[in-house]
Amino acid sequence: MGNCCERAGNFFGPQKNTNVRVSLPAVCFVWQIAMIILFGVFIRYDKESDAHWPETKREENITSDVENDFYFRYPSFQDVHVMIFVGFGYLMTFLKRYSYSGVGFNFLIASFGLQWALLMQGWFHSLDPATGKIYIGVESLINADFCCAGSLIAYGALLGKVSPVQLMVVTLFGVTLFAVEEYIILDLLHCRDAGGSMVIHCFGGYYGLAISWVLYRPNLHQSKRLHGSIYHSDLFAMIGTLFLWMFWPSFNSAITDHGDGQHRAAINTYIALASSVLTSIAISSMSQKRGKLDMVHIQNASLAGAVAMGTAAEFMITPYGSLIVGFCMGIISTFGYLFVTPFLEKHFKLQDTCGVHNLHAVPGMLGGFIGAIVAAAATEEVYSKEGLINTFDLEGKFKDRDLGTQGGFQAAGTCVSIAFGLIGGAIVGFILKFPIWGDPADDNCFDDETYWELPEDEETVPPVLEYNNHMIHKQQDIRSESNFSVEQS
Amino acid sequence: MGNCCERAGNFFGPQKNTNVRVSLPAVCFVWQIAMIILFGVFIRYDKESDAHWPETKREENITSDVENDFYFRYPSFQDVHVMIFVGFGYLMTFLKRYSYSGVGFNFLIASFGLQWALLMQGWFHSLDPATGKIYIGVESLINADFCCAGSLIAYGALLGKVSPVQLMVVTLFGVTLFAVEEYIILDLLHCRDAGGSMVIHCFGGYYGLAISWVLYRPNLHQSKRLHGSIYHSDLFAMIGTLFLWMFWPSFNSAITDHGDGQHRAAINTYIALASSVLTSIAISSMSQKRGKLDMVHIQNASLAGAVAMGTAAEFMITPYGSLIVGFCMGIISTFGYLFVTPFLEKHFKLQDTCGVHNLHAVPGMLGGFIGAIVAAAATEEVYSKEGLINTFDLEGKFKDRDLGTQGGFQAAGTCVSIAFGLIGGAIVGFILKFPIWGDPADDNCFDDETYWELPEDEETVPPVLEYNNHMIHKQQDIRSESNFSVEQS
Amino acid sequence: MGNCCERAGNFFGPQKNTNVRVSLPAVCFVWQIAMIILFGVFIRYDKESDAHWPETKREENITSDVENDFYFRYPSFQDVHVMIFVGFGYLMTFLKRYSYSGVGFNFLIASFGLQWALLMQGWFHSLDPATGKIYIGVESLINADFCCAGSLIAYGALLGKVSPVQLMVVTLFGVTLFAVEEYIILDLLHCRDAGGSMVIHCFGGYYGLAISWVLYRPNLHQSKRLHGSIYHSDLFAMIGTLFLWMFWPSFNSAITDHGDGQHRAAINTYIALASSVLTSIAISSMSQKRGKLDMVHIQNASLAGAVAMGTAAEFMITPYGSLIVGFCMGIISTFGYLFVTPFLEKHFKLQDTCGVHNLHAVPGMLGGFIGAIVAAAATEEVYSKEGLINTFDLEGKFKDRDLGTQGGFQAAGTCVSIAFGLIGGAIVGFILKFPIWGDPADDNCFDDETYWELPEDEETVPPVLEYNNHMIHKQQDIRSESNFSVEQS
Repeated sequence: MGNCCERAGNFFGPQKNTNVRVSLPAVCFVWQIAMIILFGVFIRYDKESDAHWPETKREENITSDVENDFYFRYPSFQDVHVMIFVGFGYLMTFLKRYSYSGVGFNFLIASFGLQWALLMQGWFHSLDPATGKIYIGVESLINADFCCAGSLIAYGALLGKVSPVQLMVVTLFGVTLFAVEEYIILDLLHCRDAGGSMVIHCFGGYYGLAISWVLYRPNLHQSKRLHGSIYHSDLFAMIGTLFLWMFWPSFNSAITDHGDGQHRAAINTYIALASSVLTSIAISSMSQKRGKLDMVHIQNASLAGAVAMGTAAEFMITPYGSLIVGFCMGIISTFGYLFVTPFLEKHFKLQDTCGVHNLHAVPGMLGGFIGAIVAAAATEEVYSKEGLINTFDLEGKFKDRDLGTQGGFQAAGTCVSIAFGLIGGAIVGFILKFPIWGDPADDNCFDDETYWELPEDEETVPPVLEYNNHMIHKQQDIRSESNFSVEQS
Repeated sequence: MGNCCERAGNFFGPQKNTNVRVSLPAVCFVWQIAMIILFGVFIRYDKESDAHWPETKREENITSDVENDFYFRYPSFQDVHVMIFVGFGYLMTFLKRYSYSGVGFNFLIASFGLQWALLMQGWFHSLDPATGKIYIGVESLINADFCCAGSLIAYGALLGKVSPVQLMVVTLFGVTLFAVEEYIILDLLHCRDAGGSMVIHCFGGYYGLAISWVLYRPNLHQSKRLHGSIYHSDLFAMIGTLFLWMFWPSFNSAITDHGDGQHRAAINTYIALASSVLTSIAISSMSQKRGKLDMVHIQNASLAGAVAMGTAAEFMITPYGSLIVGFCMGIISTFGYLFVTPFLEKHFKLQDTCGVHNLHAVPGMLGGFIGAIVAAAATEEVYSKEGLINTFDLEGKFKDRDLGTQGGFQAAGTCVSIAFGLIGGAIVGFILKFPIWGDPADDNCFDDETYWELPEDEETVPPVLEYNNHMIHKQQDIRSESNFSVEQS
Repeated sequence: MGNCCERAGNFFGPQKNTNVRVSLPAVCFVWQIAMIILFGVFIRYDKESDAHWPETKREENITSDVENDFYFRYPSFQDVHVMIFVGFGYLMTFLKRYSYSGVGFNFLIASFGLQWALLMQGWFHSLDPATGKIYIGVESLINADFCCAGSLIAYGALLGKVSPVQLMVVTLFGVTLFAVEEYIILDLLHCRDAGGSMVIHCFGGYYGLAISWVLYRPNLHQSKRLHGSIYHSDLFAMIGTLFLWMFWPSFNSAITDHGDGQHRAAINTYIALASSVLTSIAISSMSQKRGKLDMVHIQNASLAGAVAMGTAAEFMITPYGSLIVGFCMGIISTFGYLFVTPFLEKHFKLQDTCGVHNLHAVPGMLGGFIGAIVAAAATEEVYSKEGLINTFDLEGKFKDRDLGTQGGFQAAGTCVSIAFGLIGGAIVGFILKFPIWGDPADDNCFDDETYWELPEDEETVPPVLEYNNHMIHKQQDIRSESNFSVEQS
């Protein structure tokens, strides 16, 4: 197959060098060793995971081990972890010959990203000025997973068109940019964004789209034969969809306040998601001859409601408010897959493999503005005085901020996340244009064969199918036109 | 393929109109909008998910956020959620060409069903007479998922033979009937049924069977070519089986009493399930030439032990009692698949695609009676006085009920669930016979092509297989009979 | 196909009798009935799962139901449960025609093993001398799952070469040996081994390898055609890998101390795993022409870091220490797959289907020694006095043991586990050589057809592929050499 791929190069244009035998191991080793050194210098256990915990308990009058944050957050953490690795990973297996890369490179970049995220988020959010150390606990792990999500979303826009080395670069910059924009949005602007409509989805979506726009391939149609799903690849992708869908209530509630905060965020997300499914299916059915459903919509648009609830889930948006958000997002996202993605590709030269524009960028942005509106509309009557302070964390220097202002800052935060995504993505895109990263040629996109050793008998599948198709047409001709057939030859 | 399907209509009988382009979106939109309005009027956060929680805590002397019901039930809720969407969904992917519909329509009806269930169960169980509102928390979400399970079980009997619009009708009535029978069984008769042997499995099973009986298709053999599994579809189905199997301890313990109730229900279910696997495999092996195992039995009968523990799991049935229940159910359920399903199809005109009779209806019914016996045998010595009151909730107007009587009511409850299933199912079946629902023709059953846009290259698979089979036989002839072969032609 | 397989026997050597129609049901029934009797005699609910819990709470001044061990451990238990059934099960579906057996026999032996483990571990660890009963709770369930893991690891070395009856024997002895070595290591030597580097992975790995060595098949190449993966079987296997990878933090923390112990073990494992992924991918890429990745390495070596953290995860190994462990293990394990497994097969006649030597035996052994070093290096400064006592459980007769000695005992424990694995495995291997167990012939290994009823159209796949391959080569000849083609004939 190596030969075949080289020949293809001769036919279709200048041969690209997709050999990553030096660059991929080099990047993995250098970055992993850097992580070890930086972890050694900076990262320590926080007091809830340190062996001094029995002393801490006594000093702080904590009556029970169950008050350890581990028991509040670990079940949600594991759900989020499943979303990152199985959810995102299998969602990206839908292409017929790119499933290994979908789930495998997702595994690689999330594993690297979470290490870098522990450091970056630590420096920006929890560096102890006295000791110069970052103290980590279960909440840090959740945040690190969240931080990876931004880069994984960007991968969705790039799927099939980049090399694993490029993805490592996307992740290095993606996590860095994430930590900075998160610091600006959550700390400086003091926005609330528990489920990350703004900081995760809006940022990640536009980051990926900007990179993809810079890396536009005018001849991508040369690998059109691989740009689609097959029956079983769509079933694998549904595994990803369902684990994302089921565990999204945990995603949006994982780092909200103990007690009512986590409880309410989970309920709101659960309700919004249910509503998204019905409107996605309705629009999908309306759009096709004979009302047939399209798996692309079911796999993606059904999730849009949860993306848009990322900011507002912890607020008192009310159950019917959540239903309305899900209702609208299912419609908007499905329309996006039907009309906006083809339009962007044709008129804006934007190739968005997974349609992250419709699932993350737009619902994330709208989620940011929904959060702004719900925050601005918050009243003491609905939340109680204490509830308002808790929910919007109006303490310290923010204790006098009124809620209209808070809404304004939430909206501003959304704009910051868009700006970071677009500008950061454009810069990273230009870095990735250097011809040193081993990216595939236009006719080798969406093909696992470029970066994976494939099982032997699979390598012969495409010609078999081609041959079979040929034989079928042949046979049909024969059947309809003559008595003369292969068997009778 | 559209053409092909129309032609098929001409060959095999009157053409059915499977176009759901108007009806499916209409149903989705109308019902989703109705949900929004009804949620707006009725549904509110309960005090544990409301922003007033800090006040509530103070008023009720709750010392810690960890006492919020969220932390007692959320991990179990997520396990149940996985069972509903991945467990039931993937269990129904076993057919070779109906996997999209198996997992996709399961997704649709569960998403609608849980919304309607929050309302129906709210009206019957937790409507506050003072305010006219339903207050929801994590336990409501679990109950809504449970309520959907009834309709998903019914889908198992109907798999491949109905349209998505019909399934929405099945769910609307299924959830409604469920809420009523649950009210009668749990509130009026004051039965205990934490894991729903009676209210979920027995009801859902007979509901589906009754519908299927009314919708009997004498010419279903016309789609016999699609009525079976292939190697990989069975592997997808095993994902469903295993997630159901693993998380069933959470299902049966999700809404039992805090503390020992949840703990014991999980242990009992875990033990019963292990035992079911061994006897299912034993009977499966005995039934086949050379002792070969049948995937159908492994996928289904291994779960029967947990269904039958749905009522008794929270009682002091003892670990060996649980083993015995699992032991018997594995045998009964596997025998059901071997003998009862074919018998019912032949003599009672009952087409039960997934064999819900053997996995839900019968084990659910037996589980109800097992619960009755274990309840009647309960003594103060085994439970302690306080334990008896807790376990059987013998408070208020039921505080003087003795346990023999309780056993009698449990048995009566089982009969109520059967009656609701059979009568309700028969009525819904007649509604579904109107020729307006877009159900498939007899020769188009078990075919995703009817309601889904399929990936292009898959549409050619059946002729390819046909062709290959042909060629193989041809080749075998050639090999054995002559030197004359295709290659030599 | 039965005929075909009989014919094959005539061609390739003495016919093996793979009929398990008597033996498999007999073993299942006899052992399951024995379990019922033994459970009846010995097993009872512990006080946290007994209906007397309200009394217990009052007597022991427990203030809240949330102090019930169920809430500390149940989420971790469910994660471990998923690892055992979906993780191990699907990891073993990678072979092209042995996926049913991979996941199905895993299901069978884990279901039997956990029952026997509840008894064996109960007798050795928690038999109440006063009553002669074993009292079980959620921690017993976790330990039972752990105990099965040892036998499932052994199955990895035997995959494809043994009958289900042999696997039941492997499990019966595996669980028994496990309970004894665990008693020696944890109770007599007083080692700490929360995640089971020694007692689970090292023992299980060498147990399987010793059995496989005794059962060496010189003519295994006769089923070489089935000894590989196909595209979709590798995707199924990745489901197993990812669920193992994601939930391993729960595995290593499931039975550690409440509070900081569980918290720290989860963090350390999470970090070590991330690091393993990067070095596995680096070495995999370096080893192949053009830097292509090999799915075998991604599926397996990425997990090695967690295996090696099984002992040390609960210690204060520090986050960067965890990174270093993962870093080294990814390299060692991938090298094992590249060089050691082929070497052992060639020179030591050791056929290790899944490479458990590289994923369990060696990383487990190294994990034991890492634990010994970290224990020996523990100081009061790092742990605090109370922390040291808690972490190493230095109470009762071990309260004066210094930590250097503890390190020595940890190392001794590792040697005990190796010895038990090798000697026990050799004995069991000889038992399995009796010609009564229905194991497959050399040319029938790795073939589901031997023990499973396969879907009809699948049985024709191998000839189809063969034929297609033939035709492709033919066609290529035709294309390149002449104008004469099948179509034109």
